[in-house]
Amino acid sequence: MTSRIETDSMGEIEVPVNRYYGAQTARSMQNFAIGNELMPIELVHAFAVLKRAAAEVNCELGSLEADKKDLIVEAANEVAEGKLDAHFPLKVWQTGSGTQTNMNVNEVISNRAIELAGGQMGTKSPIHPNDHVNKSQSSNDSFPTAMHIAAVEEVNKRLKPAITHLRDVLHQKAKQYDDIIKIGRTHLQDATPLSLGQEMSGWVSQLDFALAAIEAHEPQMLQLALGGTAVGTGLNTHPDYAHKVAARIAELTGHPFVTADNKFAYLAAHDAFVGMHGAIKQLAAASMKIANDVRWLGSGPRCGIGELNLPANEPGSSIMPGKVNPTQSEALTMIATQVMGNDTTIGVAASQGNFELNVFKPVIVYNFLQSVRLLTDGLNSFADNCAAGLEPNLENIQNHLEQSLMLVTALNQKIGYDSAAKIAKYAHQNGTSLREAAVSLKLLSAQEFDEFVRPEHMIGPKA
Amino acid sequence: MTSRIETDSMGEIEVPVNRYYGAQTARSMQNFAIGNELMPIELVHAFAVLKRAAAEVNCELGSLEADKKDLIVEAANEVAEGKLDAHFPLKVWQTGSGTQTNMNVNEVISNRAIELAGGQMGTKSPIHPNDHVNKSQSSNDSFPTAMHIAAVEEVNKRLKPAITHLRDVLHQKAKQYDDIIKIGRTHLQDATPLSLGQEMSGWVSQLDFALAAIEAHEPQMLQLALGGTAVGTGLNTHPDYAHKVAARIAELTGHPFVTADNKFAYLAAHDAFVGMHGAIKQLAAASMKIANDVRWLGSGPRCGIGELNLPANEPGSSIMPGKVNPTQSEALTMIATQVMGNDTTIGVAASQGNFELNVFKPVIVYNFLQSVRLLTDGLNSFADNCAAGLEPNLENIQNHLEQSLMLVTALNQKIGYDSAAKIAKYAHQNGTSLREAAVSLKLLSAQEFDEFVRPEHMIGPKA
Amino acid sequence: MTSRIETDSMGEIEVPVNRYYGAQTARSMQNFAIGNELMPIELVHAFAVLKRAAAEVNCELGSLEADKKDLIVEAANEVAEGKLDAHFPLKVWQTGSGTQTNMNVNEVISNRAIELAGGQMGTKSPIHPNDHVNKSQSSNDSFPTAMHIAAVEEVNKRLKPAITHLRDVLHQKAKQYDDIIKIGRTHLQDATPLSLGQEMSGWVSQLDFALAAIEAHEPQMLQLALGGTAVGTGLNTHPDYAHKVAARIAELTGHPFVTADNKFAYLAAHDAFVGMHGAIKQLAAASMKIANDVRWLGSGPRCGIGELNLPANEPGSSIMPGKVNPTQSEALTMIATQVMGNDTTIGVAASQGNFELNVFKPVIVYNFLQSVRLLTDGLNSFADNCAAGLEPNLENIQNHLEQSLMLVTALNQKIGYDSAAKIAKYAHQNGTSLREAAVSLKLLSAQEFDEFVRPEHMIGPKA
Amino acid sequence: MTSRIETDSMGEIEVPVNRYYGAQTARSMQNFAIGNELMPIELVHAFAVLKRAAAEVNCELGSLEADKKDLIVEAANEVAEGKLDAHFPLKVWQTGSGTQTNMNVNEVISNRAIELAGGQMGTKSPIHPNDHVNKSQSSNDSFPTAMHIAAVEEVNKRLKPAITHLRDVLHQKAKQYDDIIKIGRTHLQDATPLSLGQEMSGWVSQLDFALAAIEAHEPQMLQLALGGTAVGTGLNTHPDYAHKVAARIAELTGHPFVTADNKFAYLAAHDAFVGMHGAIKQLAAASMKIANDVRWLGSGPRCGIGELNLPANEPGSSIMPGKVNPTQSEALTMIATQVMGNDTTIGVAASQGNFELNVFKPVIVYNFLQSVRLLTDGLNSFADNCAAGLEPNLENIQNHLEQSLMLVTALNQKIGYDSAAKIAKYAHQNGTSLREAAVSLKLLSAQEFDEFVRPEHMIGPKA
Repeated sequence: MTSRIETDSMGEIEVPVNRYYGAQTARSMQNFAIGNELMPIELVHAFAVLKRAAAEVNCELGSLEADKKDLIVEAANEVAEGKLDAHFPLKVWQTGSGTQTNMNVNEVISNRAIELAGGQMGTKSPIHPNDHVNKSQSSNDSFPTAMHIAAVEEVNKRLKPAITHLRDVLHQKAKQYDDIIKIGRTHLQDATPLSLGQEMSGWVSQLDFALAAIEAHEPQMLQLALGGTAVGTGLNTHPDYAHKVAARIAELTGHPFVTADNKFAYLAAHDAFVGMHGAIKQLAAASMKIANDVRWLGSGPRCGIGELNLPANEPGSSIMPGKVNPTQSEALTMIATQVMGNDTTIGVAASQGNFELNVFKPVIVYNFLQSVRLLTDGLNSFADNCAAGLEPNLENIQNHLEQSLMLVTALNQKIGYDSAAKIAKYAHQNGTSLREAAVSLKLLSAQEFDEFVRPEHMIGPKA
Repeated sequence: MTSRIETDSMGEIEVPVNRYYGAQTARSMQNFAIGNELMPIELVHAFAVLKRAAAEVNCELGSLEADKKDLIVEAANEVAEGKLDAHFPLKVWQTGSGTQTNMNVNEVISNRAIELAGGQMGTKSPIHPNDHVNKSQSSNDSFPTAMHIAAVEEVNKRLKPAITHLRDVLHQKAKQYDDIIKIGRTHLQDATPLSLGQEMSGWVSQLDFALAAIEAHEPQMLQLALGGTAVGTGLNTHPDYAHKVAARIAELTGHPFVTADNKFAYLAAHDAFVGMHGAIKQLAAASMKIANDVRWLGSGPRCGIGELNLPANEPGSSIMPGKVNPTQSEALTMIATQVMGNDTTIGVAASQGNFELNVFKPVIVYNFLQSVRLLTDGLNSFADNCAAGLEPNLENIQNHLEQSLMLVTALNQKIGYDSAAKIAKYAHQNGTSLREAAVSLKLLSAQEFDEFVRPEHMIGPKA
Repeated sequence: MTSRIETDSMGEIEVPVNRYYGAQTARSMQNFAIGNELMPIELVHAFAVLKRAAAEVNCELGSLEADKKDLIVEAANEVAEGKLDAHFPLKVWQTGSGTQTNMNVNEVISNRAIELAGGQMGTKSPIHPNDHVNKSQSSNDSFPTAMHIAAVEEVNKRLKPAITHLRDVLHQKAKQYDDIIKIGRTHLQDATPLSLGQEMSGWVSQLDFALAAIEAHEPQMLQLALGGTAVGTGLNTHPDYAHKVAARIAELTGHPFVTADNKFAYLAAHDAFVGMHGAIKQLAAASMKIANDVRWLGSGPRCGIGELNLPANEPGSSIMPGKVNPTQSEALTMIATQVMGNDTTIGVAASQGNFELNVFKPVIVYNFLQSVRLLTDGLNSFADNCAAGLEPNLENIQNHLEQSLMLVTALNQKIGYDSAAKIAKYAHQNGTSLREAAVSLKLLSAQEFDEFVRPEHMIGPKA
Repeated sequence: MTSRIETDSMGEIEVPVNRYYGAQTARSMQNFAIGNELMPIELVHAFAVLKRAAAEVNCELGSLEADKKDLIVEAANEVAEGKLDAHFPLKVWQTGSGTQTNMNVNEVISNRAIELAGGQMGTKSPIHPNDHVNKSQSSNDSFPTAMHIAAVEEVNKRLKPAITHLRDVLHQKAKQYDDIIKIGRTHLQDATPLSLGQEMSGWVSQLDFALAAIEAHEPQMLQLALGGTAVGTGLNTHPDYAHKVAARIAELTGHPFVTADNKFAYLAAHDAFVGMHGAIKQLAAASMKIANDVRWLGSGPRCGIGELNLPANEPGSSIMPGKVNPTQSEALTMIATQVMGNDTTIGVAASQGNFELNVFKPVIVYNFLQSVRLLTDGLNSFADNCAAGLEPNLENIQNHLEQSLMLVTALNQKIGYDSAAKIAKYAHQNGTSLREAAVSLKLLSAQEFDEFVRPEHMIGPKA
């Protein structure tokens, strides 16, 4: 015998014997055979924390017996720790409130708790998936609560450290190369000089701002819908439940969660995800800029800009021997485009709520957690496999600086805009250095030129 | 004679005599005959504030004579006050650093100042567009500075008050209708009841959160690039210039602007706009939800939901007499879709910086200011022409509540989930009321039913 | 011993003994530990077809021995048939040309062929991954070729039949319900009548147009880059190779592939995917409209529109017994939002090519195939689990029709726009029927009203 | 007296005496004071063609007197010719069916016709805006018809010629430079050579494909909703009306318009715009690639790639004399990002239809026509002000080719992949030429090297 019978309000259905889930999960697998994308496991783990907290608070408030509570807590802990990941087979593409995944969690905790109690799976006794595990909850408030728990956890535990890691690697490089003066480029054209450290400091600053933007959205992410039940009113809950369960979730996770000021908004909309993911898109835009700069500065080896040497991590081309490609930049910029698309999806999906419920919850959390996961991994990979190994190509940097016509800007305040422009044009047209042009045009002596045009004096303000 | 000759480093060009702009503006009109979209006038006004502040600080630091400063200030004030709007004919679609618009501002201020001084326009004397008006500036730092000034100004002066206005109108309605109990709806299906005030409070909360999200991004918007000049190093500026000019702009505008910590990032990227516009997209998503709820609740008059009466502002249809349409919702939801598209544009454009400059500045600020303008006007119009006139249709609200099967949820904790489900199914299949079903199934007496199922007790937690 | 040593141009690396892949695959797993998303298996299968075709054509053109060709073909067939799926562990987030996946395919085919020949894996003899399996190819032309093969295959084998399936189900319903006259709704407001069959015919038409749009993009998808090698010139290929290999791929797949007119464009850009996915977004927009109509028409059961009965596939809510939700619509509309986001990603990624190569290939094909897979499965699921079971709720349909004020339009041509408007307004304000209003206002007799206002005469033109 | 009184079904309202519009237009200006964006004038002109065609067909079918028809035709012609543009003040942000703009057209034609007839404006006699100008129409079918007419007209009259123009300029350049051999670049790294003509041919091909993609969507754009009236049934029209009016519009415009197969779909959805704009996004992606290649190839003058010289159209920087920037590329790439955002807007807006009507019509046509206008102007500007003046920098091209290590690929088939790789690595590490490396490593004689490595033999297949 490889299956057992489980039941729900629609009747009986077969379930594999080696799985803890029950009838509603099995039914969902039949009704939603769509795509490959499983509901993110981070969400399932967050759900388990929620189920534990609810059981504990229900017990404290006298609506759940202590022994039942203990069984639920034990089973929920196993889910939260990832021991039962194989028992969550449902797809993202299901009911828009995530009801089936809520029931999947209820069923797994119920059956595992029954097993722990020596009972028979599928009997819903002593732990009933609805009456006990789902007590004081609805899918409509528990799913968004799990969304927020998972998002806050992943952003804090994974994304923010990854941003800081790349930021620190680049900051270290920026300090190390602060004395290397190089040509600046605006409009892709040669411009006035700056130090390599200054150039890199811009990247560091972009990451700092992205981090700050993400943190600015945490207050709205830390509010939890739990306690709103089906439509946000809190029907079928104890008056103390909402605050207590948020506090318990805060204790269990270490994040300062609170109960949402307005549960109606937190069931019917997911605006907080739109705002937070906007900040994550800010990070994606910064990542695109940084990764692009790195690969263009590393372009060549002989026919590009070639001011940075990139670490060679793998053979570059299957036909062109010796070629090493900026593959980490390529992976990170692809991730940036993915995050931009995810942002479109989240914005549209979050706008589509009606009345008391938004039914695009799974697609929102799927895209959100994908963005977080990809940027986390992508930034760490870029930091370790590319940024940490960046080295200046001093020969190319020096050659470019000397050849540049744009040091002429140094003369702007000495001989005026128009005369400076003449020198630059002359050098450009005649293929000479600026120095030769200045002398030929009798606008400056060679000595004056050398005195006025000193790149190391051109990288900051001057009294 | 209707034109005069102006010159730039590329030679002579004709300019209409009744316009203050000069050669570079005229040249841009020839080179970029693209589209209808003028550079947003709010940006031009912000630029004028910047030019005034720069002149004043340059004078204070000894690099601009007081009489020149005075002339620039007077001309700049006229631009800032909108008196010279007709002199800014340039399109959004130009150089990506906004150089031509910077020069347009320089030229108009120069020629107007020359006129004020009794000189001859086009002579660049006594006020030279580059040497005096643009002193201590580059397009590369002045254009993004003007972007930030305009954005902060429009968000604070227009958008935030509009959010608050609609929020206050809805909050007033929510309080007024807090005793009207109505059916809730989830998945578009009948659900447990809530008060109309509670339903509307969700909208209020969404607007509050959107406002908070927008404000959370202000610190990054309040940093100014000015003082970075061409590549961010501050070449050709006095060491005190950057801080002083930001302080002066703060005084002139009343917003707490500061000089950017890192000028390289503020020239080469516009990540702050991505994050801020993400918050604005949050507002757009909230607007879509609110406007949709209003029009669905107002659907009918006889074959829809019909729980709200909407004000009739105009004849609805040219063929169907008597029909009044939810046109304010339609305008606002169209705006929401526009903002979503603008968000895509801003995210892509902001990600495309290279080295020391992002050359998508005009398209970013154009889309940003369009979003701000449309949401401002759209929210105000919706507040005044729709929300303020919303009235509950009490007859429909009461009918729906009484017909609903979903009050059965009240029985969940009395007789258990499965029995409650039976009652609902019976009533559904037999077209009866829940009360009749409960009695027929002998699960409850009529008296018990009336005692247990009381909508007014179903809109909150209960000890 | 559980690992063996494989080598590439960067040196030695350990590989699990039970895997056919080699050094470059193993190296990629180390360097790109990013996300969960495996390179789509459909692409791997397409790659195998390509490798077989290349080997056969190389043999025909005299550059590959027949015995080597046979080994490659046998191993490639196993990959194409899905027998070796477990040997393709690489992620989407890798080199932007897909080089590592090309090498993964080369390595698996090489080692499997070596095994078939009785050789020792990792020795690259008798079948070398580069010299033989990759012969006359580069990642730069083979990866985009595999993209096109996989896309054409999935669109034709899966997506188009799914569109047709839903279209046929709805067309059958439309014919079946062509005599049921119901109220129309515009602006969510009651409008003139139409038949339920007419309403559904709009959905059928949308699907027909989406299918036509997709087919219109096939010619550009049927062009293959193979033969362009590294930069599009065809270096290191035989002059007959490109045409022959495309013809062979056409034979093997049954799709009329041809060699690309211009290989430079097909390596450096993926514009064809932008256009084709635009057509797929058209399908997503149509899906959103249809799924929304279905759930709104099915809203209720008692407090909504309720003109359609939807099949009940699962328990709806964990707290509200008896409720059945439009879950198939919810899954399909979530998919529509995902496709909209994917469209943003594909558009941005495809625009970012430089010179001879676009290095966003993996993210483009990942998003494209996800859209195809989700719409295929989602449309099939919607067709079978929702559309096929739709039933009209005749009672509600009839009630709405009779209550409606909008039948007044029938009077427009009889008594003029203004008089008709008066009747509608009177009925609206006094809660009467149109008939009563017409008589009260003495604009028509009851008899005249009944003669003029006949819904069955209002659903088409009239001479 | 500067105003007159006009009336509609809601009562009286003042209208400026020098304007032809009437009450509903004036009311809309009050109710929708939103943004700056006027309804695109191209749409108004298209509307006028539609009004003329409808009047003519109504007359032919006997429902409009010939003298009234003549008056309408004369007034409509003036609108179509742009003589009355100042009389269309309405914004995009209005009723989602475009009702007010339809009425604006009806009112202007009515009043102008009255004036032509010597009557008094506002009296609706002898030409009534509803009863005559709008005869056999509803906003719901006439607005989408005008959308399609305007779109087809602008795409054919403006966009397609612009694509062809740039394509021809680039094709001419490609032919001219077909003998200039240069280094190829993949992953931004030096790659095997190709001719400058080949490189440019890729751009030409991208434009050809974009044009083909756009044309592939024309059949769906050529179907017209007119004749569907309010909900798509054709109520209040003559059975011959729909076909005749489409035929007349085809005659008047010269485009092969037909009546839509299914009017329900053409009122309730705008999927055709999604698909067509997807093809336009393909053009935007191509434009981004081409403009980016041009500016990177033109980067420098001394510290970039510098293989193309770009025409200098304007002074580049206000602080850096002598610098000339790729401003046409900047304008075109900004346009590309705008089109990407517009595509998001159109996709979302088009998906939001309900039942018999999509009420996002104005925002769809606004974004569509903006994309068409910007790409038309942007491509023309780029063609004339940039592409036509592109010149190869032969010195830099030759230097890059000679320095490159990637000619080593030529040796791949002579001495094998591994030996070729050794030569490239040696040259790279020792800063030598490939030739020196080959000899030092004793893998080839100098003579052999020169024989094998010939760039001109490396730009195509070889038997």
